[in-house]
Amino acid sequence: MMIPAVAPGAARFRLGELAERFALTLIGRPDPIITGVNSLLAATPGEIAFLANPRYRKQLADTAAGAVVIGHQQTRPETGCYLLSDQPYVDFARIASLFEQRPLAVVGIHPSAVIDASAEIAASASIGPLCNIGPRVRIAAGVAIGPGCSIGPDCTIDAHCRLLARVTLVERCRLGQRVLIHPGAVLGAEGFGLAMDHGQWRKVPQLGGVCIGDDCEIGANTCIDRGALGDTTLEADVHLDNLIQVGHNVQIGAHTAIAGCTAIAGSARIGRHCLIGGGAGIIGHIEIADGVVVGAMSLVTHSLREAGEYCSGTPIQPKREWAKNAARFRQLDRIARQLKPKEPKDS
Amino acid sequence: MMIPAVAPGAARFRLGELAERFALTLIGRPDPIITGVNSLLAATPGEIAFLANPRYRKQLADTAAGAVVIGHQQTRPETGCYLLSDQPYVDFARIASLFEQRPLAVVGIHPSAVIDASAEIAASASIGPLCNIGPRVRIAAGVAIGPGCSIGPDCTIDAHCRLLARVTLVERCRLGQRVLIHPGAVLGAEGFGLAMDHGQWRKVPQLGGVCIGDDCEIGANTCIDRGALGDTTLEADVHLDNLIQVGHNVQIGAHTAIAGCTAIAGSARIGRHCLIGGGAGIIGHIEIADGVVVGAMSLVTHSLREAGEYCSGTPIQPKREWAKNAARFRQLDRIARQLKPKEPKDS
Amino acid sequence: MMIPAVAPGAARFRLGELAERFALTLIGRPDPIITGVNSLLAATPGEIAFLANPRYRKQLADTAAGAVVIGHQQTRPETGCYLLSDQPYVDFARIASLFEQRPLAVVGIHPSAVIDASAEIAASASIGPLCNIGPRVRIAAGVAIGPGCSIGPDCTIDAHCRLLARVTLVERCRLGQRVLIHPGAVLGAEGFGLAMDHGQWRKVPQLGGVCIGDDCEIGANTCIDRGALGDTTLEADVHLDNLIQVGHNVQIGAHTAIAGCTAIAGSARIGRHCLIGGGAGIIGHIEIADGVVVGAMSLVTHSLREAGEYCSGTPIQPKREWAKNAARFRQLDRIARQLKPKEPKDS
Repeated sequence: MMIPAVAPGAARFRLGELAERFALTLIGRPDPIITGVNSLLAATPGEIAFLANPRYRKQLADTAAGAVVIGHQQTRPETGCYLLSDQPYVDFARIASLFEQRPLAVVGIHPSAVIDASAEIAASASIGPLCNIGPRVRIAAGVAIGPGCSIGPDCTIDAHCRLLARVTLVERCRLGQRVLIHPGAVLGAEGFGLAMDHGQWRKVPQLGGVCIGDDCEIGANTCIDRGALGDTTLEADVHLDNLIQVGHNVQIGAHTAIAGCTAIAGSARIGRHCLIGGGAGIIGHIEIADGVVVGAMSLVTHSLREAGEYCSGTPIQPKREWAKNAARFRQLDRIARQLKPKEPKDS
Repeated sequence: MMIPAVAPGAARFRLGELAERFALTLIGRPDPIITGVNSLLAATPGEIAFLANPRYRKQLADTAAGAVVIGHQQTRPETGCYLLSDQPYVDFARIASLFEQRPLAVVGIHPSAVIDASAEIAASASIGPLCNIGPRVRIAAGVAIGPGCSIGPDCTIDAHCRLLARVTLVERCRLGQRVLIHPGAVLGAEGFGLAMDHGQWRKVPQLGGVCIGDDCEIGANTCIDRGALGDTTLEADVHLDNLIQVGHNVQIGAHTAIAGCTAIAGSARIGRHCLIGGGAGIIGHIEIADGVVVGAMSLVTHSLREAGEYCSGTPIQPKREWAKNAARFRQLDRIARQLKPKEPKDS
Repeated sequence: MMIPAVAPGAARFRLGELAERFALTLIGRPDPIITGVNSLLAATPGEIAFLANPRYRKQLADTAAGAVVIGHQQTRPETGCYLLSDQPYVDFARIASLFEQRPLAVVGIHPSAVIDASAEIAASASIGPLCNIGPRVRIAAGVAIGPGCSIGPDCTIDAHCRLLARVTLVERCRLGQRVLIHPGAVLGAEGFGLAMDHGQWRKVPQLGGVCIGDDCEIGANTCIDRGALGDTTLEADVHLDNLIQVGHNVQIGAHTAIAGCTAIAGSARIGRHCLIGGGAGIIGHIEIADGVVVGAMSLVTHSLREAGEYCSGTPIQPKREWAKNAARFRQLDRIARQLKPKEPKDS
């Protein structure tokens, strides 16, 4: 069903060509043939490496890379070949994409797929093996649905979306253009809406949907529940890593990226250009402003109204030391009170 | 395979009818036609909204809703139409359920499903496309198994359970009546049982099963491992959100609800009517009493023997301030010791 | 497709046989027939129990087990039958495995599976119902692929691996021998590689793969992303519990075990024989030495260069007390400064 776009190693460029193509300043000779990219330590003379994280700077001295994409201001060994860049990671990504062999989806519907008679599927779309496409689903041009996906009632998938294997859209999900969804993700499941009624839980109907903007990316096994009333919404260019929980009616602003294992409770509103660290938690019904950065495993318990970095938690320590300090945390208020007489304005 | 129960917008009620049906006090005229429910901000005159969370009280003034379900004591604008209730969220849920269009499962076995010859499936059950039903599985009346589910050996599914798409029951899972399982959930996988044997891990056989009580709900991509010896057990009316890990031999009491991304280690015992916040952790082999509330991202490291609310963690702060405080946490025991002479009974 | 290895209850041993087989010292008579294993509280006279966790010691007095596997030094009631062991949990696991009835996979390819023409599958392998096997996949002797798995391009699966239901290998995954993967796991998805380019995210191609050593175990719904450049690597005998996120280019050393819901960011390097608690976090690009133990829900923010136990976080408390202490955490640096004059060397 899937065939490679190009044979491995087929892409070849002269170094000078690459410099010109991406408007980079070449330090060194333009002749070498480049056939791939790699890390500083693993790159061969036929490969391009990069330096963006200063943590790896000392690897510059030892690299055998044909050239290194590097910032203009970055100190570098005299010898060696460089592509100077204003944004080395971005330019490396551009170069790397020349060598990416993305499996091509075969246009058409695999005979093992089960398609509801009311579904509308563009002729240029690809529906992989063992997919199930439900009633009133609409799939636009150039969409690729990988093996084992299940698309439930009333979902719409706009042009050039790619759903990899075993993705589930439960119902009423609307995807913009070029949305990328990794395996095992579940969009549009019922939100966790419960009302306690004389000692028993009563489920609150979840009548809304999920609306995903253009160019969003949803990680493997990540879950986005559908809204209770109205939609759970991601604006354009939102990137969610793996194993993230997005509750019902959450709204996430454009260009926000969220790292793995983060949990976002219902009706939270996250701004644009935010970065949320891995394993973080965001409680329900709060607002996070544009440009907020939340540290890994921090818990956001109230609205954050100004851009900036926020953290919670305590530093990791050897257990013996940690245990003593943690025990004192239990007494912290009492400890602070002892100090009060000295600084009464603190009380 | 799935068809809607009713055409969109088909349900219509007079406001007075709804008040009578649910025994609510109507403030306003009984005439308006109600065709749906919505949030305070989005509701139209043909829709009913509700106020339960005081955070949204100021939206009362601006709502265009046909009526608002609201507590008897809640202050409210003079004008406007209300349905007074002792439990507004519950009554709203009841009203909303009139407008819910749950896809109806088609009775019978889809021809693409693979069914073991020894499985027993009630005539009124629905087995969706591309399901796999293993040996000795028993599926009772009115059960609906969605597309792509895999039901392994020796599982039993009691009446009116609903498994949405791509659910896996690995083996020896027993579901009560009306259990609802969201997509991607995995029940009955081997627990994480390992014994270190001369530098290598030896797997400890996981010989038990999973037993789920009536009316339980299991969230998307949530995992419940089977017991090592005996069963992992959920009593009736337990609700698990998405992406929760339930280790082997955990026991969860009736009417407990657990929010997303929580991890519960093996053999923990959680009482009835507990509420566990999102991203929480519960270590193994401890007991949590009935009626315990655990805060989001709190770690329960010892048994909690009394009902009440419990938390761990530190407040979120701007990173600069947090970093200074976190650094001091490392010295907390030393700081506390400095104070000791003043209050020797603390030592 | 799956049939039990033996009929339930078919395995029977005399107690004396078991003692001899595993070189355990028998206290009591060798005659009783043993037909299974169970916990101390639930075991019958025909079953063997064990005591490893001292938490359960008092259950020794009440057990009806036919015999208890127990440490040589463990105090025990005078009466009762025992199998004395240097490593009771290991020896119990060995005994239990005699009674494990693992479903046997039927050799061959199920007719509902979809196999690419270029895939190479050993004659002794088992490919379950509704699997999809992509181009250039190689599957070795004795491999069992359960129902609904999706194996993408260029994956290789070495001898005697077992993939349970609905596992996804996205692309370029290489499994060693006897790797066990639980349902819903996703290996080889694109890592979370993003570069900010004039206000938009640009995806960084993820050109590497995933390399899993012999005897590894991957939990249900766990995700292991493929490398950006080079591979994400697990050495031999690594055990990952459920719902774990392993970022691109992470390296995990042999014999390390990681509990559920842990998140490991890209390029982290974890040593051998480590134990990582549930819900922990490990930030990217750091190194953890061999033999490190990380507490549950601890966040590792810097390299840990020495073996030993490490923790972060605060103890759980009743919410009222916790809230007071947590509020003081916000003032901790100021509190500490008040003390400075008394101990100037602390500053």
